[in-house]
Amino acid sequence: MASKIALLQVNPIVGDISGNAAKVCEFSKQASNAGASLAVTTELAISGYPPRDLLLQPDFIRACHDTASTLESVIPILVGTPVPSVGERSLPGNGVVRAGDSVREVTRKQLLPTYDVFDEARYFESGKGPGIARTIAGLDIGVTICEDAWQHCGATPNDYDSDPILHIVEWGRQGVVLDATVNLSASPYHADKSSIRVEVARSAAASLNHPFLLANQVGANDDLLFDGRSIIAWPDGTAVVAPSWTEGVLVADLLSPDACEWLGDGDVTILSPGEELTSGDDDLLDAVIIGLSDYCRKSGISKIVLGLSGGIDSALAACVASAAVGAENVTAISMPSRHSSQHSIDDAKATAEALGINFSIQPISDLHSSAESALKETLANGNPVAAENLQARLRGLIVMAHANANGAMAIATGNKSELGQGYCTLYGDMAGGYAPLGDLYKMEVYALAREYNQRLGKDAVNESTLTKPPSAELAPDQKDEDSLPPYPVLDEILRLHIEDGLDATEIIGQGHDSMVVKEVLTRLARNEHKRWQMPPAPRVSKRAFGQGWRQPLAARHDWR
Amino acid sequence: MASKIALLQVNPIVGDISGNAAKVCEFSKQASNAGASLAVTTELAISGYPPRDLLLQPDFIRACHDTASTLESVIPILVGTPVPSVGERSLPGNGVVRAGDSVREVTRKQLLPTYDVFDEARYFESGKGPGIARTIAGLDIGVTICEDAWQHCGATPNDYDSDPILHIVEWGRQGVVLDATVNLSASPYHADKSSIRVEVARSAAASLNHPFLLANQVGANDDLLFDGRSIIAWPDGTAVVAPSWTEGVLVADLLSPDACEWLGDGDVTILSPGEELTSGDDDLLDAVIIGLSDYCRKSGISKIVLGLSGGIDSALAACVASAAVGAENVTAISMPSRHSSQHSIDDAKATAEALGINFSIQPISDLHSSAESALKETLANGNPVAAENLQARLRGLIVMAHANANGAMAIATGNKSELGQGYCTLYGDMAGGYAPLGDLYKMEVYALAREYNQRLGKDAVNESTLTKPPSAELAPDQKDEDSLPPYPVLDEILRLHIEDGLDATEIIGQGHDSMVVKEVLTRLARNEHKRWQMPPAPRVSKRAFGQGWRQPLAARHDWR
Repeated sequence: MASKIALLQVNPIVGDISGNAAKVCEFSKQASNAGASLAVTTELAISGYPPRDLLLQPDFIRACHDTASTLESVIPILVGTPVPSVGERSLPGNGVVRAGDSVREVTRKQLLPTYDVFDEARYFESGKGPGIARTIAGLDIGVTICEDAWQHCGATPNDYDSDPILHIVEWGRQGVVLDATVNLSASPYHADKSSIRVEVARSAAASLNHPFLLANQVGANDDLLFDGRSIIAWPDGTAVVAPSWTEGVLVADLLSPDACEWLGDGDVTILSPGEELTSGDDDLLDAVIIGLSDYCRKSGISKIVLGLSGGIDSALAACVASAAVGAENVTAISMPSRHSSQHSIDDAKATAEALGINFSIQPISDLHSSAESALKETLANGNPVAAENLQARLRGLIVMAHANANGAMAIATGNKSELGQGYCTLYGDMAGGYAPLGDLYKMEVYALAREYNQRLGKDAVNESTLTKPPSAELAPDQKDEDSLPPYPVLDEILRLHIEDGLDATEIIGQGHDSMVVKEVLTRLARNEHKRWQMPPAPRVSKRAFGQGWRQPLAARHDWR
Repeated sequence: MASKIALLQVNPIVGDISGNAAKVCEFSKQASNAGASLAVTTELAISGYPPRDLLLQPDFIRACHDTASTLESVIPILVGTPVPSVGERSLPGNGVVRAGDSVREVTRKQLLPTYDVFDEARYFESGKGPGIARTIAGLDIGVTICEDAWQHCGATPNDYDSDPILHIVEWGRQGVVLDATVNLSASPYHADKSSIRVEVARSAAASLNHPFLLANQVGANDDLLFDGRSIIAWPDGTAVVAPSWTEGVLVADLLSPDACEWLGDGDVTILSPGEELTSGDDDLLDAVIIGLSDYCRKSGISKIVLGLSGGIDSALAACVASAAVGAENVTAISMPSRHSSQHSIDDAKATAEALGINFSIQPISDLHSSAESALKETLANGNPVAAENLQARLRGLIVMAHANANGAMAIATGNKSELGQGYCTLYGDMAGGYAPLGDLYKMEVYALAREYNQRLGKDAVNESTLTKPPSAELAPDQKDEDSLPPYPVLDEILRLHIEDGLDATEIIGQGHDSMVVKEVLTRLARNEHKRWQMPPAPRVSKRAFGQGWRQPLAARHDWR
């Protein structure tokens, strides 16, 4: 009996149908050479995930489906692709097409996630249930798509009406013998999710009483990250997990964990029953780097420019940029004003030198004076924040001029904690095509800076940057703590509210100061206006600003 | 028999539970005084529509539901409100609660629109079917919620599995006699939609063989506009329609179109069978004005600042701002650079004077020179667009300084045609909290300017502004047509693609130049990056940028 099934862990580009198809073919060839007799792609591998409103264009659906159906694979292959609607007034499906030996549609995704970052009910019509690919490479294989497997172990936020895994179990009771069940996934990353995904696979394998194989997309598209980590799990809980953040093929041997092979960089992880997949700051750093690097590569951006203030955020952003597009393609500009301290310039320089990125010092004092004198009356009679913002916006102007002149992308360097509090300047430090740290809490920024230093083997972020009190340096002796709670407290309150859904009363009940909690949550609500215009940021936490955090804008009425 | 049912056409503020409830009570009292024996609110009147991710907070749902259930109405009332989930792992419902006489839940919305601007499958669990409010004010009333009535006449983009109107018709066949069916709606505006909504009501009334009454929300929340125009339709096609863009109560008499009364500004429109509801530029202008005025009022913004260039877009934006928050609360700044012509300053001044708004001229020449000299090397060796953008960004900086100093909101003045082509500057003319013209094609901007002049009785937009060739004036002798097709052509191509979903081949098939079409669609795809950061704009066309036009960002691969 054929026993090797290849999980093609690809990094597709949304909309690049022919490129994605070519990659699938190439990977299936490698898989065949390594002895696999059947290949399985990730979910919507032909279109890339998430195709968003491209799915509203019928010719896009047709092009994907035609390409999937005519794939030249040396071994039989199960391909994830959009499939045309069945009726004239209905939506297309999120389907699996069999190609390589005979061509037919195998199944359409039944459970369509429509929460958090998912909006599949917007695009797809639900399928009727799981599928079976019969006598494919001599095997009979159950076929499911991503969410289809998640209801079974209760890992979805709410229950669905049906459970496709149980559906296959029921077939088994009726005498349908399958060799394995596969799952084509595009399951986005967030910290800690990889271990949940292993549980999903184990739970399915245990109920099905045969191996369960999950092929997961890798790489970033827009603000969504996919960590790969394709899985084969056995009924006893043994699992083999492919590496994260890298393309390749997991040649999974149904008969033996030890015979599973990874074609690509890195190596598989073999988990004993009950053993968890762990990950830490190292993983989070990879996530942030691939977010930016894929965003650039897929958008045809090769150069990055940023303001390097000497603070922790821009320092880490420079590290990430340097890892993402190469130090030689990063330009950092120190733009001191009269409120900037000498250590800011020195620390910025230290980071630039350690990374080997392009660096220049462009004081904004003269421009700042010109702007202040042009706006003399306005600033004299107005809210002092206007004068502070002026500096941030002049810096934004300089960074954008460099970006436009040189065909580079500016990046915004803010973190989730300050974005959540509106402690940032629209069109100033918020300017940029991408915010690599936009979903990291402030204390995570510190942790990743230390992690980056360790990885680099030297201090790209020096001790001064890591230890001095955070300051925007937009006014004399300004400190973040003059306006915000200490970051460990702020981070915790934000996390409890955003990630865990706790309200003010519940957070206060956990021992936080009542006044502080209310101030933090009020600022969070009132600054949705700003966040509406923030650049995309890689989603690394359970709930990011943006698609997973859509408060009404105009209505500032905090209903509590 | 009681024969008067009041449709409470309210303008709720999302999240302002107690304020919305108070308004409903006040309106129901007016309705009672006018002889109505039953009141019906709009959909989710207690929370306001769209509540978006507030619906993910269980305490928000509970607060809405408690408020709706304890409403002090002098007559029985059917109240639209979120209602709690039925199971622990399920979503809440979009429901109707009966109050005023006895308290009970009547129904939950069955058809949950999840297309275009709608994402109700994200928030709600589907109801089981329509409801009946029995012996309410002596009547038996069928109860449906918004989309529930749209499947019946085929006015949804795709078919649903069920048809709640047919469901009630079926009850009728089984002997359930109803006096009328009501529909609680929050049906967003787009140009031409009002006539479709009348057809929905007529179609339902005809099949039900009794009057069909639709209470629709009015006003703007974020980027969504609601035009009101609540309706009563009879089986023969006669209909009475409430005024648009204004709050009030339609006291609908089931027995007589002529006895229907509107409590509020304006008057009802009586339509004979087959007669259509028409609307034109006047309506579109109202839509744009209420978009901005509600955004400001609901966000606590009383003052607006904008750059007034002497061009058509900022001229109309000034008109709209002046109508929205009052001329005395609008500040317009003319910011000529060395590339600006004298007529630009003169025309800006003419607009400001005609409107009576605050006006100042703040030349940017000095600041521009300072910036150019600070960025000398960068600009000398780079893409010339960097130097052009510099001017737009200095203007954005000045406008934002005024906004921040004075607690005003800056508005972005761009239109849909230029935003669609990326013919605008991020953090420059795109800066602002709201883009009042962001969903108007360029030729619509001209039409509304003429309409505004007519309404005002004098030329707020002078003939020079209306007739001179559009120019960004960022380089010597620059004209929009140097970079873009003539606007009538551009608008038409964009409209065919965005609104009607035609692809390049189909648009060329309609007689447009092949090269022009491809250039336009390529620019449209490539500028999604910019639009991702555009301020909210009132949705007036069938498909706006933003929630109804979500192309993948990073993936610039135009798949054609």
